[in-house]
Amino acid sequence: MFSIGVDLGGTNLRVAVVDTAVGHVLAYVHGPTQAAEGPLAVIERMEAWIEQAIRESGLARDEIIAIGIGVPGSYDPATNIIHFLPSLPTGWPSVPLGQEIESRVGRPTMLINDARAFVLAEAVFGAGQGADTVVGMTLGTGIGGGVVIGGRLHLGLGDTAGNVGHQIIDFNGPICRCGSRGCLEAYASGPAIVTLGIKAIQEGRTTAIRDLVTGDLNSVTPEVIVQAAELGDAVAREILDEVGFYLGIGIANLVTLFSPDVVVIGGGVSRAGDWLLQPIRETVRQRCHMTPVDRVRILLSALGEESGVVGAALWASQVAQER
Amino acid sequence: MFSIGVDLGGTNLRVAVVDTAVGHVLAYVHGPTQAAEGPLAVIERMEAWIEQAIRESGLARDEIIAIGIGVPGSYDPATNIIHFLPSLPTGWPSVPLGQEIESRVGRPTMLINDARAFVLAEAVFGAGQGADTVVGMTLGTGIGGGVVIGGRLHLGLGDTAGNVGHQIIDFNGPICRCGSRGCLEAYASGPAIVTLGIKAIQEGRTTAIRDLVTGDLNSVTPEVIVQAAELGDAVAREILDEVGFYLGIGIANLVTLFSPDVVVIGGGVSRAGDWLLQPIRETVRQRCHMTPVDRVRILLSALGEESGVVGAALWASQVAQER
Repeated sequence: MFSIGVDLGGTNLRVAVVDTAVGHVLAYVHGPTQAAEGPLAVIERMEAWIEQAIRESGLARDEIIAIGIGVPGSYDPATNIIHFLPSLPTGWPSVPLGQEIESRVGRPTMLINDARAFVLAEAVFGAGQGADTVVGMTLGTGIGGGVVIGGRLHLGLGDTAGNVGHQIIDFNGPICRCGSRGCLEAYASGPAIVTLGIKAIQEGRTTAIRDLVTGDLNSVTPEVIVQAAELGDAVAREILDEVGFYLGIGIANLVTLFSPDVVVIGGGVSRAGDWLLQPIRETVRQRCHMTPVDRVRILLSALGEESGVVGAALWASQVAQER
Repeated sequence: MFSIGVDLGGTNLRVAVVDTAVGHVLAYVHGPTQAAEGPLAVIERMEAWIEQAIRESGLARDEIIAIGIGVPGSYDPATNIIHFLPSLPTGWPSVPLGQEIESRVGRPTMLINDARAFVLAEAVFGAGQGADTVVGMTLGTGIGGGVVIGGRLHLGLGDTAGNVGHQIIDFNGPICRCGSRGCLEAYASGPAIVTLGIKAIQEGRTTAIRDLVTGDLNSVTPEVIVQAAELGDAVAREILDEVGFYLGIGIANLVTLFSPDVVVIGGGVSRAGDWLLQPIRETVRQRCHMTPVDRVRILLSALGEESGVVGAALWASQVAQER
């Protein structure tokens, strides 16, 4: 069973033809999204790369069951029209992305949130392989996520279930960009980590973070803080411990509510690896008393950058098969 | 399809023969659990009432597919041995309840958490009828709950999923009896409501709560506070508003994570009705920005005291059918 998976990111656009029975990528075309050119140019690029991937796969067009497009935001699942993609210029409101690709390529096309595509791929072919319940979290500019039960995404009303970054971990906490307060994302997103790094510098603390950015606060990134931690910097380690604690609280809630076999963590910030995993695991152990927490595996993603296209393709296959 | 549902409570024991295809109760035997007599006496009572219910139903024993026992606590789903029932004297550790009833009655017997049985019954035959995703919460001495997707309970590792009362809504919050901090249960259980009422009296505030208990702090109950609110007491209304806010935060998280069609609220404290529902709904509207919250119905339970036996019976039918 073959489908095409597309991963539309603010920075990179990825297209693959996938054997969704086994998660194998037959053809893979990717490059910069060049999102500044606007939706139409990106859609034309997406179409061209889909055509290229079909050619490279050696498959006939009608062997492709469906196309799944992972999008970094929200959409209407009934119409496959975009609501809002915060990481793309203009946000693409009302862009009929599904219909555009379907009519251009001639295969059934459906949208899926990119974090949920990631979790589906990891649950079926990656870190969660063989598990019944997998909850996933993507750490980046925002914190996304999803829930897979028995190999299927639980999507809920409007395909919105699994927005793990917008659970409230302190009802009196800081304002979140979503309009609520005290969401996990307000504590542990990439920008929240950067804010902690800048604050440490501004408070005059002795830290390698300052040296690595040669004093330029605008150059502080999560990667720089991880680099400082690896150099042995106590302040950077403290920041990652604190962020790991917040993530651990959020994951403790997911464990309490879903009792998953596996929690999988991905996204750019997850490259911090053990600097975050260790405080996450410790916090979950301390804060989960209703779940057999020793049986819950908390793991980093196993599939790398192809998880998005594999997940979107698998989802398209699953939906097409049911119709 | 007929099964027997048992609802083992700290106060009441209920047994019913249920047509689980339609949720109809054919025979119903209930009375005080008399839990002080200990597990063996309660098990003998349970056996006798099951036999009575079978006789009253007019069914032959082998028309009963299975027996489901809803228990107020945790158990091992592989062996149907009790772990801990906090509301029963001694807590029944290691009591092989499933095996005892199975060998005495001669029908396959399985345990299920009582709050999850409640949610299953409400999802399929009650407030959530026709919905795909239903999340439920029982408000009492503790806060229990469960999740039903497509008419089936999501149970997760060790049947522990859906412990909605132990999600953390403030990571710095008060100690919870589970060992964590800031759990919803620590803010909005029956005892937490009583504590707010006692505090108001001790602070010397003018409130009908004091008059209703004639100054006896030990007589303050959630029911008394609701009664005071109905009499127009401002302090009681403030307390229920505050508790409704906490519940609203917890339900906002459930809405964000599960995107349910219906949230159903039951348990003794839910008899406060609109005094809690109104602040709950307002808080969910203010705090959920990722889910089409106008489509989420937040409802009180529709089935009354029989929800426990109906849910336990339905669950037994579902499990037996799959074997």
